[in-house]
Amino acid sequence: MKSIGNRPARAKKTQTAPAAVESNRQLLLSSIRDVLIRLEDTIIFALIERAQFSRNAFIYRRGALEQAIGGRSLLDYLLFETEAIHARLRRYTSPDEEPFSDNLPAPILPPLSFPENPLALNRVNLNPAIRAAYEAEIVPLLCPPGDDAQYGSSALCDVACLQALSKRIHYGRFVAESKYREAPEQFARLVGAGDTAALLAAITDAAVEARVLERVEGKARAYGVETGSASGKAKIDAGRVVEVYSRWIIPLTKEVQVQYLRERLAAI
Amino acid sequence: MKSIGNRPARAKKTQTAPAAVESNRQLLLSSIRDVLIRLEDTIIFALIERAQFSRNAFIYRRGALEQAIGGRSLLDYLLFETEAIHARLRRYTSPDEEPFSDNLPAPILPPLSFPENPLALNRVNLNPAIRAAYEAEIVPLLCPPGDDAQYGSSALCDVACLQALSKRIHYGRFVAESKYREAPEQFARLVGAGDTAALLAAITDAAVEARVLERVEGKARAYGVETGSASGKAKIDAGRVVEVYSRWIIPLTKEVQVQYLRERLAAI
Repeated sequence: MKSIGNRPARAKKTQTAPAAVESNRQLLLSSIRDVLIRLEDTIIFALIERAQFSRNAFIYRRGALEQAIGGRSLLDYLLFETEAIHARLRRYTSPDEEPFSDNLPAPILPPLSFPENPLALNRVNLNPAIRAAYEAEIVPLLCPPGDDAQYGSSALCDVACLQALSKRIHYGRFVAESKYREAPEQFARLVGAGDTAALLAAITDAAVEARVLERVEGKARAYGVETGSASGKAKIDAGRVVEVYSRWIIPLTKEVQVQYLRERLAAI
Repeated sequence: MKSIGNRPARAKKTQTAPAAVESNRQLLLSSIRDVLIRLEDTIIFALIERAQFSRNAFIYRRGALEQAIGGRSLLDYLLFETEAIHARLRRYTSPDEEPFSDNLPAPILPPLSFPENPLALNRVNLNPAIRAAYEAEIVPLLCPPGDDAQYGSSALCDVACLQALSKRIHYGRFVAESKYREAPEQFARLVGAGDTAALLAAITDAAVEARVLERVEGKARAYGVETGSASGKAKIDAGRVVEVYSRWIIPLTKEVQVQYLRERLAAI
């Protein structure tokens, strides 16, 4: 969450450049890629933490704690309450953050002025798709089956995973804006023609995708290794982390890019 | 947070043993050590995440956001609000969880019945010391100096670090209870004599401590390695993570053990 500051989180350690300068730098694809590379670590750490607990379907079941939290699921409750705190600290006024919950409270801090650029105005939000895939497919892929009664711990990990996935996927807006600025006429033509397949092809860099998957596999192996416990088993199956990237993170990031470019060009 | 379940978080993947059986198993030192080993990963991941941001002294300054959060520091606010959610989900009714904040709300879920054993009744709480060391020494040790305006992100990492450190250190209660059960007369004598140095010597296992530090160094190296960014710099200095263990985690865990044994034996 960088809402109290005034620019997206980055891998760089110290920065005194004023916001306007930084705002241009963000759009350099190499700089965006550094953020995405650092977010890989955050995502893999979060998935490893979740994978230590069972699937715990209870967490996702509406009405499981009926009287106490009004028929919502435990994760609904924890996500809303967490996002409410973050909203009060104006997390979701920032151009790289989208909430999962509706009807969040207003910020208690005065608004920051973000530059009025297409990134700040665009609010493509794929969180419903991210959450659906996470609950129905990613948790069963990564976690041992069954119920270990660790509902609180597991749901806290879910919030961390969902927030990290959402940030990574919505960073597609920065990627798309950067690609657009490199070839505005080409993208105007593709969007104008309404050819989704051609637009998708134009934003796809197969070599970069292959490198991402390779790097993620290496990281998942390094971070997931079990060192010291009796079982000697890895904390996570690296191949399944790669699958999370190939089946959901990369395609949803590209979907963000497509939607972003359509809205961006419709607004011109 | 395992407050919705009924036993402390463990590294084991699936468990169907009833709570009573589990409650005895917890007291086996080898089982406790498995938990502590898995918590190393959680702590190192959390420290690595915090270390990507600058020190950001703003977060810890009371009154920095004066009107909005009533003169508290940003971390005071975020810790309290986070712990309030967890308290409503009865996190702090669990024998291995202590809050940092006072005046937390009551649980909205009905109470769980924990076995009335010394672990459930003892509430040694070193969180004030943990938080003071964290803000004044651990953050400056691990984070680059200065201010990068990433206050929200940094403070969220602080909450994760503090909760992980607190859980690890208060697990000393389980360690102490287990040691006590192996030699109740010896500990009764040591506590009765009021000789802190001798008590500390009796709970100290230098060989185990050396293995912990060695393992933590290896993990910090493996998880902190930078893979793919332009800088090629590690995400964290493994030696400094070892220092967090040797200067704070291990001594504070032993302090929990000493305080626990004193209270436990006074209660007999």
